[in-house]
Amino acid sequence: MLEELKARTLEANLELVNRGLVLYTFGNASGIDREQGLAVIKPSGVDYDQLRPEHMVVTDLEGRIVEGDLRPSSDLKTHLALYKAFPGIGAVVHTHSENATAWAQSGRDIPALGTTHADYFHGPVPCTRELTDDEINGDYVLNTGVAIIERFEGIDPLAIPGVLVAGHAPFAWGRTPMDAAHNAVVLEAVAKMAFMTVMLNPNSGVSNALLDRHYFRKHGASATYGQK
Amino acid sequence: MLEELKARTLEANLELVNRGLVLYTFGNASGIDREQGLAVIKPSGVDYDQLRPEHMVVTDLEGRIVEGDLRPSSDLKTHLALYKAFPGIGAVVHTHSENATAWAQSGRDIPALGTTHADYFHGPVPCTRELTDDEINGDYVLNTGVAIIERFEGIDPLAIPGVLVAGHAPFAWGRTPMDAAHNAVVLEAVAKMAFMTVMLNPNSGVSNALLDRHYFRKHGASATYGQK
Amino acid sequence: MLEELKARTLEANLELVNRGLVLYTFGNASGIDREQGLAVIKPSGVDYDQLRPEHMVVTDLEGRIVEGDLRPSSDLKTHLALYKAFPGIGAVVHTHSENATAWAQSGRDIPALGTTHADYFHGPVPCTRELTDDEINGDYVLNTGVAIIERFEGIDPLAIPGVLVAGHAPFAWGRTPMDAAHNAVVLEAVAKMAFMTVMLNPNSGVSNALLDRHYFRKHGASATYGQK
Amino acid sequence: MLEELKARTLEANLELVNRGLVLYTFGNASGIDREQGLAVIKPSGVDYDQLRPEHMVVTDLEGRIVEGDLRPSSDLKTHLALYKAFPGIGAVVHTHSENATAWAQSGRDIPALGTTHADYFHGPVPCTRELTDDEINGDYVLNTGVAIIERFEGIDPLAIPGVLVAGHAPFAWGRTPMDAAHNAVVLEAVAKMAFMTVMLNPNSGVSNALLDRHYFRKHGASATYGQK
Repeated sequence: MLEELKARTLEANLELVNRGLVLYTFGNASGIDREQGLAVIKPSGVDYDQLRPEHMVVTDLEGRIVEGDLRPSSDLKTHLALYKAFPGIGAVVHTHSENATAWAQSGRDIPALGTTHADYFHGPVPCTRELTDDEINGDYVLNTGVAIIERFEGIDPLAIPGVLVAGHAPFAWGRTPMDAAHNAVVLEAVAKMAFMTVMLNPNSGVSNALLDRHYFRKHGASATYGQK
Repeated sequence: MLEELKARTLEANLELVNRGLVLYTFGNASGIDREQGLAVIKPSGVDYDQLRPEHMVVTDLEGRIVEGDLRPSSDLKTHLALYKAFPGIGAVVHTHSENATAWAQSGRDIPALGTTHADYFHGPVPCTRELTDDEINGDYVLNTGVAIIERFEGIDPLAIPGVLVAGHAPFAWGRTPMDAAHNAVVLEAVAKMAFMTVMLNPNSGVSNALLDRHYFRKHGASATYGQK
Repeated sequence: MLEELKARTLEANLELVNRGLVLYTFGNASGIDREQGLAVIKPSGVDYDQLRPEHMVVTDLEGRIVEGDLRPSSDLKTHLALYKAFPGIGAVVHTHSENATAWAQSGRDIPALGTTHADYFHGPVPCTRELTDDEINGDYVLNTGVAIIERFEGIDPLAIPGVLVAGHAPFAWGRTPMDAAHNAVVLEAVAKMAFMTVMLNPNSGVSNALLDRHYFRKHGASATYGQK
Repeated sequence: MLEELKARTLEANLELVNRGLVLYTFGNASGIDREQGLAVIKPSGVDYDQLRPEHMVVTDLEGRIVEGDLRPSSDLKTHLALYKAFPGIGAVVHTHSENATAWAQSGRDIPALGTTHADYFHGPVPCTRELTDDEINGDYVLNTGVAIIERFEGIDPLAIPGVLVAGHAPFAWGRTPMDAAHNAVVLEAVAKMAFMTVMLNPNSGVSNALLDRHYFRKHGASATYGQK
């Protein structure tokens, strides 16, 4: 069941590895079949070089396992919360990639400092508030999703396809699993360059006009980048 | 047509990849045939590992496609502006390499801090001013070239074969495509070392005598470096 | 004798190499057989690519060689001191990995700045005090162990499976050699992210609730991470 | 002639490449035959992957070519000055490795911040003064050697087998070509860690007792490291 989505989700998980975003079993990618209301996600704590499509776990949107012998990623409930809140997205990835995680740990948004950023993120990559002790002691993984969703009030998740969870690490998303992984890879590069930029000049930043120009060059009806 | 230049331009594009200067499809290299008044440039958004010489796009200096089925790089007009303004150059490359881009995002020139820099750049690598909203909303890619050319008033582009576009990323150039790529690779290394240097000592810098000595060791009539 | 432990100890030594934690012959891993009261350790100054299980040196807990033609690692006495003081551990590794060593050289604990840290270390990774001249001029390697043990007064070494020795480098440990190497690898990643984090925000830090949540997610009776 | 020394010198040049210390044709290694009063050095500007032992250039101590069809490295006179001033050394290497060069560009000595440093360098790695304009405009390459030698007044070059040339880059040396290359590799690692250390704590440093202990553990009559 969902063989194609399983293959695509596995591919996205491996993209994270090949691009150097994960250490050991850190990180996970999932995809959703909106029509069937089912998600496909990496199993928890399995080595990436042993992952096969049939290891992917299928769950419904309440997190009940529909197919699969392995336990789903421990971050499942965050993924599901995002799928429910952001109807336009088709995939979610989570990593502890070094530079984006450093920003998340610092509690700071990644400001939009240049066109590399603007090509993918139409404004700062926001950092959530810290979770309260009650949220942490309660349904922690779900509450991580709640804090992300709260932070995106007034923000289009497809225009800013990523977030930093304060004291934790980044999540990214997209229309497809490979899209989401691609956004996570770019987020990591953007985070690395932003670190150096703010060290060189704490007051760096670009105009809204530049943000718009680059973002809409790659996205939306008037996009001109690539072949067609 | 222009088979040799296409091969050389492809080679320069791949050099950027092999030296770790590009992520995904970021970056592009072009070359010019001055006699025929034609430029050869990478197509837009095509994966580097699928690039073949026949994918290179041939345009005239007004950007009209003369040969090729693919759309040219979205940065074409910047390349062409540089070819027109800098008659001594034969190739242009553009990357979002991490360290040079961080400097571009900071809006700071890369100061001449040592002989590695001086061997290639006879003075600071300049950073352009930011574009105005009108320039961004107008013919943006062309205006990027205009800002570069404005910044080079009084500077010999062959003595400083690279630039940082504020809030964007570096461009480099040279007599041949591989020359331009080589300069982009060295610019990235120089940017990385300059970052650490100014963190260690914000007042670092070298004398004009040292700049001259190293630059003219590798360039001009009295060059002594290499095998004649 | 102890063939299985030799193989596991060699494996841990090579994990340090494969993960980029060692340069030349820096670093060493050991394991202990608690029942027999014997330790297995890497020989001193032998190239990693020539290491075979039969090169591993077997010693008793006083450091007397029981088997092996080669000299044991020069850090042997530190390893043995840790085995005696921390009865729950089964392996020790020592590296000069770049980021953890930078923290050790700075004399600062690595604060708990996020969940990557909290998944492995239930609080800051402590840095020892500097050794006195007498300790350095005396039984230096043993005294390094003494300083570590002193620093762990009131700390459970299995909850914080690593330490920074001031002006020196990190040690890590675990239940098995691969466990200890794994902890050293994560310590290095955590140190790298912590460096950037404190540069971005010197006041970063996470709540005790978050520390507890992540640590106990992977450790102890109520762990939920991985496949059972 | 000097076939063995040519092979060893080539090997040292390639070690610099394999350890990531050189970009393109930057960097060079030489060795000396003290009995014959002849030096063997890399040719100038030749690609490393085409280097063969027979390309090595043999010169006397005045820099006259005794054997070889290629031009010697442009840094030859610095190497020869060091051989004359430091009779105990048998090889010299020069690189523009990123971290050591950043320190050289900053004009700062690399302080002795830990045992990795102390195992190889018995005190700070000194940085020369800047050359005067007259020195630069005169016999520049020779004067680089003069500034190094001046900086080593009162310092044993075998106890501190490396130097930073202000505004330029590091040199390292040793008893054999591979020794010198090894010291250059460690210098680069030490420089990288020192950068992070001083960012974390500008007042870091180790005691003389620790410097002595580590240095004499690996060097001199009472050395205990390695297999005898």
